[in-house]
Amino acid sequence: MKILVINGPNLGLLGVREPEIYGRTGLPALEARLRAVAAESGVEVEFFQSNHEGAIVDRIDAILTGSPVDGIVINPAAYTHTSVAIADALRAVRVPAVEVHISHIAAREEFRHQSLTAPACIGMIAGFGLDGYEYALRHLVKSAARS
Amino acid sequence: MKILVINGPNLGLLGVREPEIYGRTGLPALEARLRAVAAESGVEVEFFQSNHEGAIVDRIDAILTGSPVDGIVINPAAYTHTSVAIADALRAVRVPAVEVHISHIAAREEFRHQSLTAPACIGMIAGFGLDGYEYALRHLVKSAARS
Amino acid sequence: MKILVINGPNLGLLGVREPEIYGRTGLPALEARLRAVAAESGVEVEFFQSNHEGAIVDRIDAILTGSPVDGIVINPAAYTHTSVAIADALRAVRVPAVEVHISHIAAREEFRHQSLTAPACIGMIAGFGLDGYEYALRHLVKSAARS
Amino acid sequence: MKILVINGPNLGLLGVREPEIYGRTGLPALEARLRAVAAESGVEVEFFQSNHEGAIVDRIDAILTGSPVDGIVINPAAYTHTSVAIADALRAVRVPAVEVHISHIAAREEFRHQSLTAPACIGMIAGFGLDGYEYALRHLVKSAARS
Amino acid sequence: MKILVINGPNLGLLGVREPEIYGRTGLPALEARLRAVAAESGVEVEFFQSNHEGAIVDRIDAILTGSPVDGIVINPAAYTHTSVAIADALRAVRVPAVEVHISHIAAREEFRHQSLTAPACIGMIAGFGLDGYEYALRHLVKSAARS
Amino acid sequence: MKILVINGPNLGLLGVREPEIYGRTGLPALEARLRAVAAESGVEVEFFQSNHEGAIVDRIDAILTGSPVDGIVINPAAYTHTSVAIADALRAVRVPAVEVHISHIAAREEFRHQSLTAPACIGMIAGFGLDGYEYALRHLVKSAARS
Amino acid sequence: MKILVINGPNLGLLGVREPEIYGRTGLPALEARLRAVAAESGVEVEFFQSNHEGAIVDRIDAILTGSPVDGIVINPAAYTHTSVAIADALRAVRVPAVEVHISHIAAREEFRHQSLTAPACIGMIAGFGLDGYEYALRHLVKSAARS
Amino acid sequence: MKILVINGPNLGLLGVREPEIYGRTGLPALEARLRAVAAESGVEVEFFQSNHEGAIVDRIDAILTGSPVDGIVINPAAYTHTSVAIADALRAVRVPAVEVHISHIAAREEFRHQSLTAPACIGMIAGFGLDGYEYALRHLVKSAARS
Amino acid sequence: MKILVINGPNLGLLGVREPEIYGRTGLPALEARLRAVAAESGVEVEFFQSNHEGAIVDRIDAILTGSPVDGIVINPAAYTHTSVAIADALRAVRVPAVEVHISHIAAREEFRHQSLTAPACIGMIAGFGLDGYEYALRHLVKSAARS
Amino acid sequence: MKILVINGPNLGLLGVREPEIYGRTGLPALEARLRAVAAESGVEVEFFQSNHEGAIVDRIDAILTGSPVDGIVINPAAYTHTSVAIADALRAVRVPAVEVHISHIAAREEFRHQSLTAPACIGMIAGFGLDGYEYALRHLVKSAARS
Amino acid sequence: MKILVINGPNLGLLGVREPEIYGRTGLPALEARLRAVAAESGVEVEFFQSNHEGAIVDRIDAILTGSPVDGIVINPAAYTHTSVAIADALRAVRVPAVEVHISHIAAREEFRHQSLTAPACIGMIAGFGLDGYEYALRHLVKSAARS
Amino acid sequence: MKILVINGPNLGLLGVREPEIYGRTGLPALEARLRAVAAESGVEVEFFQSNHEGAIVDRIDAILTGSPVDGIVINPAAYTHTSVAIADALRAVRVPAVEVHISHIAAREEFRHQSLTAPACIGMIAGFGLDGYEYALRHLVKSAARS
Repeated sequence: MKILVINGPNLGLLGVREPEIYGRTGLPALEARLRAVAAESGVEVEFFQSNHEGAIVDRIDAILTGSPVDGIVINPAAYTHTSVAIADALRAVRVPAVEVHISHIAAREEFRHQSLTAPACIGMIAGFGLDGYEYALRHLVKSAARS
Repeated sequence: MKILVINGPNLGLLGVREPEIYGRTGLPALEARLRAVAAESGVEVEFFQSNHEGAIVDRIDAILTGSPVDGIVINPAAYTHTSVAIADALRAVRVPAVEVHISHIAAREEFRHQSLTAPACIGMIAGFGLDGYEYALRHLVKSAARS
Repeated sequence: MKILVINGPNLGLLGVREPEIYGRTGLPALEARLRAVAAESGVEVEFFQSNHEGAIVDRIDAILTGSPVDGIVINPAAYTHTSVAIADALRAVRVPAVEVHISHIAAREEFRHQSLTAPACIGMIAGFGLDGYEYALRHLVKSAARS
Repeated sequence: MKILVINGPNLGLLGVREPEIYGRTGLPALEARLRAVAAESGVEVEFFQSNHEGAIVDRIDAILTGSPVDGIVINPAAYTHTSVAIADALRAVRVPAVEVHISHIAAREEFRHQSLTAPACIGMIAGFGLDGYEYALRHLVKSAARS
Repeated sequence: MKILVINGPNLGLLGVREPEIYGRTGLPALEARLRAVAAESGVEVEFFQSNHEGAIVDRIDAILTGSPVDGIVINPAAYTHTSVAIADALRAVRVPAVEVHISHIAAREEFRHQSLTAPACIGMIAGFGLDGYEYALRHLVKSAARS
Repeated sequence: MKILVINGPNLGLLGVREPEIYGRTGLPALEARLRAVAAESGVEVEFFQSNHEGAIVDRIDAILTGSPVDGIVINPAAYTHTSVAIADALRAVRVPAVEVHISHIAAREEFRHQSLTAPACIGMIAGFGLDGYEYALRHLVKSAARS
Repeated sequence: MKILVINGPNLGLLGVREPEIYGRTGLPALEARLRAVAAESGVEVEFFQSNHEGAIVDRIDAILTGSPVDGIVINPAAYTHTSVAIADALRAVRVPAVEVHISHIAAREEFRHQSLTAPACIGMIAGFGLDGYEYALRHLVKSAARS
Repeated sequence: MKILVINGPNLGLLGVREPEIYGRTGLPALEARLRAVAAESGVEVEFFQSNHEGAIVDRIDAILTGSPVDGIVINPAAYTHTSVAIADALRAVRVPAVEVHISHIAAREEFRHQSLTAPACIGMIAGFGLDGYEYALRHLVKSAARS
Repeated sequence: MKILVINGPNLGLLGVREPEIYGRTGLPALEARLRAVAAESGVEVEFFQSNHEGAIVDRIDAILTGSPVDGIVINPAAYTHTSVAIADALRAVRVPAVEVHISHIAAREEFRHQSLTAPACIGMIAGFGLDGYEYALRHLVKSAARS
Repeated sequence: MKILVINGPNLGLLGVREPEIYGRTGLPALEARLRAVAAESGVEVEFFQSNHEGAIVDRIDAILTGSPVDGIVINPAAYTHTSVAIADALRAVRVPAVEVHISHIAAREEFRHQSLTAPACIGMIAGFGLDGYEYALRHLVKSAARS
Repeated sequence: MKILVINGPNLGLLGVREPEIYGRTGLPALEARLRAVAAESGVEVEFFQSNHEGAIVDRIDAILTGSPVDGIVINPAAYTHTSVAIADALRAVRVPAVEVHISHIAAREEFRHQSLTAPACIGMIAGFGLDGYEYALRHLVKSAARS
Repeated sequence: MKILVINGPNLGLLGVREPEIYGRTGLPALEARLRAVAAESGVEVEFFQSNHEGAIVDRIDAILTGSPVDGIVINPAAYTHTSVAIADALRAVRVPAVEVHISHIAAREEFRHQSLTAPACIGMIAGFGLDGYEYALRHLVKSAARS
């Protein structure tokens, strides 16, 4: 079993950018942690970060054309609110996806309340900090185990 | 440490009502499970279910007047979309709360996308089935441990 | 066969409140009349009036937990326009319900035009005065007979 | 006493069109039934069906210019949502009208929820199938008897 | 020179319908008056009243196909608010038109404030009672004289 | 009998400003013409132009405090769309007013379609050029004569 | 003469909850103060606080069924923005009511600007702290004295 | 196989009206061309033009009552934006329909962007001039051949 | 201590204009009354009425440039709903202001429900008739005494 | 003559993704077919597919800087609803473009009804399956031939 | 060449009012600076500040009636968001105008984002502090030199 | 000191695309000019143009990871209206940015009036042609000098 973890725009700055909102842990530490969690269940994880909407679509589409995965943990960041293309990609590949937001978007600016990508996912977790990624990952592994 | 788990209207029917959306596990089984999880960390859990908006407000307000808790896991169900009173109560008591939805509300009817209570919480998890309660509970315990 | 007749907030004042809109007949007279109509077809009727949204939800939920009925005639009054919880309860129990309004809400203030509960019912009748209850009752009995 | 029963666009297809929504009874059978109900009270019924908004307005206006009636049962069908002209005609002739919808429009597509004609009527009944016509007729006869 | 005076739906009831809004003068008296006014300037008038949107479009379209006129006085009544077809017809024939409303629509119900046909006209007069027709007629005659 | 003719902001530029919309006649010529028309019926006219919303309100209010008139012809120009104060003044003095617009505002920019002042008037005329003032004046004189 | 003072949800926490907005005085002190003010004019006061929308409706409805009062001072708190039922109850009993808000709701979050209950009252006072209750009480007593 | 080609209001003026938008070819020439195209595949074509919404509904409804066709090419013109009745008729008869617009409505006035009839069709083509009719016809023929 | 009492447009007509809404007391009587109330606490009052938005802004701005006051009672009347300039002036001078409305604006036309000036004030009182001014004045005096 | 055929995000999955909506033919087969059609008229075709909004803009802009074409067939897919940049590019290069959608977007989710790119095109075809590309291509070739 | 610099309501308080937003420089210092800049190019500057919308309109209108200028730098302040009259005046005089805002209005309250006057100008500069006036002035001088 | 000048989509066509809006100067000439202006103050400039939203985000993010700058002049072009990602990047790096638009977007199509990126900047200048870049650059240099 393989899970793809996608991080959207500006998340490469994790640990550097506005730490009062996003915390001080960087992407590599997050990835190490998730790899460890996945290893417990014998699950492989692939990490992908891009500021490019098209590159994220490329990676998701590739699931059907040579790079299959069994689940997706995705933090679309700013593209949450503007990308129909990523939502369409998630719908197209028909792999279960869980949307993660580090901060609690419902308590921030109003334009961050609406998610175009959420309807293409099976769940959402927000405001749990980096733990959200872990819970999303565990949920996908468990769901797969059940089905 | 004590966590209050609140279930809103119609959740007494858990396991009976529309099982294709809400699953077949009832409230007692959910409570047993959460109690076990809490016990691991030496945490006490109190369960409260009501179909009455006012009763939920009563219970939350009581936190300041004799029945204190250290965190709240709340599934406001239908009141998510209509209750300013519960949101005000959560703001008034200033205890960290996490909002849980069993189903992925962002993928259901449009009127279920907006949450009046979410801005009064510190996080939200939706579409994880009953696991959402567990993750919310763990998150509150862990956050408290950290602070 | 048993039909549950639910009257929402302020309908306890029937016959007293604004008689130019709601008429001069009180609840007891209405109940007597409906009981007579039901008796014609050997149908039992249960009456329930409450000003509490939660109490109405309690009664509807109880249909699945020990107090079954075969149809619901409901005048949600003010809760027509604000209660997702009652609508959810009606959806949850999957018993056919007909919504009744004594006055013709489409010809009153604009905020009375929208009904949150109507989509959870199988029909609606408004502006027929107390006759609306009778027609709703007859419709449920007849529909049950047909199926 | 005379009641005019108006059926709007596409209702000539009753019994043929989408029977899962509109049933299998055609207009002639409906008319026979209503005539029988009316006869019980010595009331005359006139039937009018047209796909033309203007023709419906013509018939209603004629009430003031040589073809009087004492009440109107009207299913404006699609014109419910688009015709100010029919609503104006109903207001102009000042004869009590009851709006009928065979299906429960509040539970269908959103554009069917709004009625431009309803505010010009004294009542509305929806989702009762063809029984709605009978109840509307009875209501008009009874109201006239009372006044 | 020839002016076409078009009256829309329910205006055949002029003098009969809601006289407190529309006055007690009927169409024939209005037509006589306008014919007299027109005669002063040697102008011919044609009158057309219909409750049918399509018939009004037919008459306007005919201006280009055998029944030319030099100006149009139009009271589209209810179609003011719903007819793109009449507006398109007015645009298509490129003859100056003036919109007339007997009552002051800006002081009535909100849905009467918007006019779909007005942008296809060169002027509008409302609330002048039947004088509005005369002023509109005079304006068209005078404008033609000037150009 | 006395009629007050009010011209709002930028109308002092009449004859100078955008003549393709407003024509080449200036205020003095318009006033001379209206005075002549009024004289025919033995009516006095007072002219008032101001770019100041407050000054227009001052003049209207003065009707009740020493400077009475029997009717008002008002072209509120830009204040048509923004002044509640002028509308309130017109309502306060309870003198019949007719709103005039030289151009056909319904065929111009969308923000010019809404009039805050129109509901406080008894009629409106737009797109008749300066003739609109004359027709409004005649209408007020005639209405007064009738009552 | 008797005045009913109703406090809505979370107001039982007065003096405890967010004192920077609501001050440090509790309900008992407020009640003592109002009782004293009322006593000056020989007026009786009844206090009622509930977090339950239905209980507030119960109390108001009871005015017509055995527990009459001559005026109502009501702070509906969160129900200000969501309760049609309380507004309907106020309309039903036809007793003058004044709405009180401790803080200046027009200067807080946007969802607090709209009041569903205000149109059913004869006045509103906001931002005067607990003095608002006293002024509302005095206003009702004085109005009653006048009429 | 038989295809019905419907042209809506003002399309009788084709070739005469605003040729810079609609071109200089009239309806007879268009019909000749389509007949020729249809003949290639042994398909019959029936042409119907009306300015009357009701007449268009009549023709479509007739498909189920004696005048069957196998596909519909429809240019609803102005009724595109205002007719629920035509959309309902298309849904009722369950014959595949393709909507045609001669001009590119998405690049014209905003009120022309929305189509009420499109959701009742299987495809739409706009801005192809009269070729749009041919492509729509070919598409229906080809689709039928395939199924 | 000095309080500035500002009355906006059309309030010079107090006692004359629509007495069924605004009462029969004029400005001088109101001013005398307020002067008396203020004198009790040794407070000076200055009265200012203008129909000019700019003049009201002039007076408020002057607080910072030679004409200081310690509090403002303001009834912006029609400017309540349209003046950003007065709101900006109130914000600029940073003197506590209370907004007064004689009638209960929340129970009048919808456009009177929104206040642009309220967010720049510390409180609002509406529907208390002229008593509102007195209560506002007392509130400012008392608040100043407290701080 | 050369036509550029652009396919937007997720269209690389054609033939693989949701075949019940998009069919089972892949991009290479589509390209072969279009090349054959173009060859009939001696026209060259260039194909371009990208999931990157920026790459699509790059290709369109290149028309003015070294890679000219005479017409564009574009299926912007998800970017139809979110890309002002592609619309601006189409406007900038001033080459006629036709928008193609394989499915009938007007009959799918509401957010797919609006096209930001359509106003920058000369026509649109939707719901014709892959034939839409061919018709768009033929239309561009024919239009060019005519001009 | 002469440039008119207009400052709207509350800008007389420049240097005094909310210095954290508007800085500590007053109008005289700003005027001296602009005069110096203008003198470099031999350009004359006229300064005008008023809190009165009407007075600003008076000054702009005077450009056509005896007080001509060649360009306008205008900071309409609060009137930016509410004055159609100033926008109409700017359109009427047809002199190029540049709108200046000292603070960055797009980053302040939402009601400050919309400008009614901007469409009547040729450019806008916001958030540059007092430098915005200088840049606007230079731009007008330079544009005039070019044309 | 170093300033980054970012040009968004389609701006590579500067001097070629729609010269009546954007002028005839190309990017290289603009860059030369800005370099010269910067050199006056000993400031370095870096130029970056991309049609890719992601590439612009990459460049901005790089400010925190190895490619620091002290200010940003950005013309986001079409991304102004659709990119939350660029706005988030600007917020993340906390470097002062000024938004530039060559044309006066407030006077163009309505969808160009709203800027998602403006709230993340400290100022905006529009309609000054290429001079806007120079003024933005000077403003950043000057602000830095001051702080």
